[in-house]
Amino acid sequence: MSQHRHIKLGFILHGVGRTWNDWRHPGRDVNASTSLAFYQKQAATAERGKFDFLFVADSLSITEKSSPHYLNRFEPITILSALAATTSRIGLVGTLTVSYSEPFNVARQFASLDHLSGGRAGWNIVTSWLGDTAANFSKTEHPPHAVRYRIAGEYLDVVQGLWDSWEEDAHVADKESGQFVDPERLHRLDHKGEFFQVRGPLNIKRTPQGQPVIFQAGASDDGRNFAAKRAEVIFTHAEDEEAGRAYYADVKARAKGFGRDPHQLFILPGIAPIVGETDEDAEARYRELASLESIDTGLGFLSRTFNDHDFRQYDLDAPFPDVEHIGINSQQSATLRILALVRAEKLTLRQVAERLATPRGAFVGSPETVADRLQQWFESGAADGFVVFEPLPGQLDLFVDRVIPILQARGLFRTEYEGTTFREHLGLAQPDNRYSSKAAEKSAA
Amino acid sequence: MSQHRHIKLGFILHGVGRTWNDWRHPGRDVNASTSLAFYQKQAATAERGKFDFLFVADSLSITEKSSPHYLNRFEPITILSALAATTSRIGLVGTLTVSYSEPFNVARQFASLDHLSGGRAGWNIVTSWLGDTAANFSKTEHPPHAVRYRIAGEYLDVVQGLWDSWEEDAHVADKESGQFVDPERLHRLDHKGEFFQVRGPLNIKRTPQGQPVIFQAGASDDGRNFAAKRAEVIFTHAEDEEAGRAYYADVKARAKGFGRDPHQLFILPGIAPIVGETDEDAEARYRELASLESIDTGLGFLSRTFNDHDFRQYDLDAPFPDVEHIGINSQQSATLRILALVRAEKLTLRQVAERLATPRGAFVGSPETVADRLQQWFESGAADGFVVFEPLPGQLDLFVDRVIPILQARGLFRTEYEGTTFREHLGLAQPDNRYSSKAAEKSAA
Repeated sequence: MSQHRHIKLGFILHGVGRTWNDWRHPGRDVNASTSLAFYQKQAATAERGKFDFLFVADSLSITEKSSPHYLNRFEPITILSALAATTSRIGLVGTLTVSYSEPFNVARQFASLDHLSGGRAGWNIVTSWLGDTAANFSKTEHPPHAVRYRIAGEYLDVVQGLWDSWEEDAHVADKESGQFVDPERLHRLDHKGEFFQVRGPLNIKRTPQGQPVIFQAGASDDGRNFAAKRAEVIFTHAEDEEAGRAYYADVKARAKGFGRDPHQLFILPGIAPIVGETDEDAEARYRELASLESIDTGLGFLSRTFNDHDFRQYDLDAPFPDVEHIGINSQQSATLRILALVRAEKLTLRQVAERLATPRGAFVGSPETVADRLQQWFESGAADGFVVFEPLPGQLDLFVDRVIPILQARGLFRTEYEGTTFREHLGLAQPDNRYSSKAAEKSAA
Repeated sequence: MSQHRHIKLGFILHGVGRTWNDWRHPGRDVNASTSLAFYQKQAATAERGKFDFLFVADSLSITEKSSPHYLNRFEPITILSALAATTSRIGLVGTLTVSYSEPFNVARQFASLDHLSGGRAGWNIVTSWLGDTAANFSKTEHPPHAVRYRIAGEYLDVVQGLWDSWEEDAHVADKESGQFVDPERLHRLDHKGEFFQVRGPLNIKRTPQGQPVIFQAGASDDGRNFAAKRAEVIFTHAEDEEAGRAYYADVKARAKGFGRDPHQLFILPGIAPIVGETDEDAEARYRELASLESIDTGLGFLSRTFNDHDFRQYDLDAPFPDVEHIGINSQQSATLRILALVRAEKLTLRQVAERLATPRGAFVGSPETVADRLQQWFESGAADGFVVFEPLPGQLDLFVDRVIPILQARGLFRTEYEGTTFREHLGLAQPDNRYSSKAAEKSAA
């Protein structure tokens, strides 16, 4: 493990783009979202840059009006498994909801990915929030927001319990005696909870990481508590450095409050760096990106965030309309963020729509400018690292070839992978098996 | 496509072994079941042999007494996705149950695999039959056998419906106009059935095969009807050539009865060829394999097949005990097969246990003998091809290097892949999209 603290870096594989119209850039491959070759190329570049991990987001419901990167996308487990075979060191993290899946299946798929990849799997646990997802899963409605986190907590208990089914040395496989498994070291979970009853054991042996790494992205109060209690990495959104510091301090304090070592919990805001030769060049590239969007995109995004409320009825250049009465259940954190932004900056509807259509962020500039900002956020307590989006084609290569060497020269980022597993990259402890720990306690007593 | 009918060949990836003790063979890698390297090597060998497909079986429940290949195994979707990245032509077929999964997720994962592999995905649809599986999925019991096939039929309706969500040309992606998807060619399913309500559309575009290939393995009366009605490939068990012919004729007749072209439904018995330099050499290899098993293995298998009935209470060398009153629900076809065998051959308990512990089958012999038998079954109407197990280490290479060239010389098997998709290998028609067909009918009318 490295002697001092390094920036953690993830790269988010989002195929065709991340906004409503960035796929229209001349350099974008419109088939990227279902192209293994595209994903392999990005994965190889990120691995060349010594990124800690690749990240694949997810969603479970579309209509013909959905954003292009929602409409057509690889299912995360499948693309990550494929990339496990063509990469060798980089972590592989995927989103999978607890709302419309079985914990036994999810525990198996991530355990299997961890074996396939030699210990590089991570699970981003989410509760699905789009109002019409239930309709794809034979359900009539979502459980309320607070209940979803109770479900998530119990679900994670089951998955992590199943991952402990096999103690390290349960797989005896002694050809001489004919003993394949040690029955004393293979455990049923016998979970009987409020939402789940799962017997176990899992039908795959203990994985190279012991337990795949747990990601979470909670931003609401319930979400922050859940993340502070259970997550090892938090993929968050930070509007600016100050908001990042506030979130960071809050969640680390909550983690401490739950009795955890706050240094074993990493907070990584998503960023979309735009690197140019100079700051002016980078600014021009941002404007090129923004020119791809229309005001309708931003209004559509607002509508989705405010329970399908129609914003085309308002004057674009008047102050943002009073919509606090529109429900905030379905995308609670996004809705609250917009309302806070409006209050803080007294924006018009047009300004809010533009910002939503083409998020700019703080990381637009020359390689030095971008490296300075990353260092600033990292050292000021706004972030333990970052999850990097590629807002424009070619930006990942620029980040790897121009920004990372600066971070390396400053001692802020690794020059080589030091370990082989994702936990080793992060400096996260290998979790004890609950049964082995018990046995050790017993024999010590 | 080839001018005349070829034998279809699949290879089943079963990791550490397929019986209770074959993992004890000196040449077996005891870690094979969770070794990507082992799977990649076998996949590459099968692809070198121009096999039509790889097959990954599955199960969802273990106890410490389960067979080694059940205890520890890759989850099928993950290993097949990994192999998609390291193979280029061979089909990739996996088992996934309809009993403890969501059709939307399954449709997505197989569609995603079909994109990843350039059109090589196949789904073996099963209804889970082990009595204690429910306990891993927050359920107290299984639905009865007949209901499971009603569920399976509706489930498949939903999955295939979702696979048609996107018409071929729905993904417009016109950078100029900004149209990413044609809303007229993206369809909701709006399925409202007895067991499932699923709106759609699927969030991944139409796959290279249009629809992944459907496998089924039904052997009971309900199972045969389901397979004859819905499957494109049937992975079956045939005790001998005569049983194979009877099954083949029965299922093809049922398919015809359902209005299907029986030549678009392939019946492939599983076989475990043991190839030696001579027939005697092959026989010696079978005996080497059988020597790894103990009588307890066969008794344990009997117990599992007859609802955990204890067979150790009976005299091993007396006639097989009268156990017809023991329930036959959970593994109906296996139970009936054993009872029929006992009746036909008047076997003792020991003989039944031995046959179960080390199945021998009809394909033990020199390369010529094995090729002759394959040809015989193929030409006598017992099989359209075979799913090949590897009963002993090295047998896959022997089959590829010694048996397949004989089949090729006789014009019974391909010498090169002619197409790129799995459907093309099989000579299966590319299914029409239900909405495109309707549109074509409308415009023709």
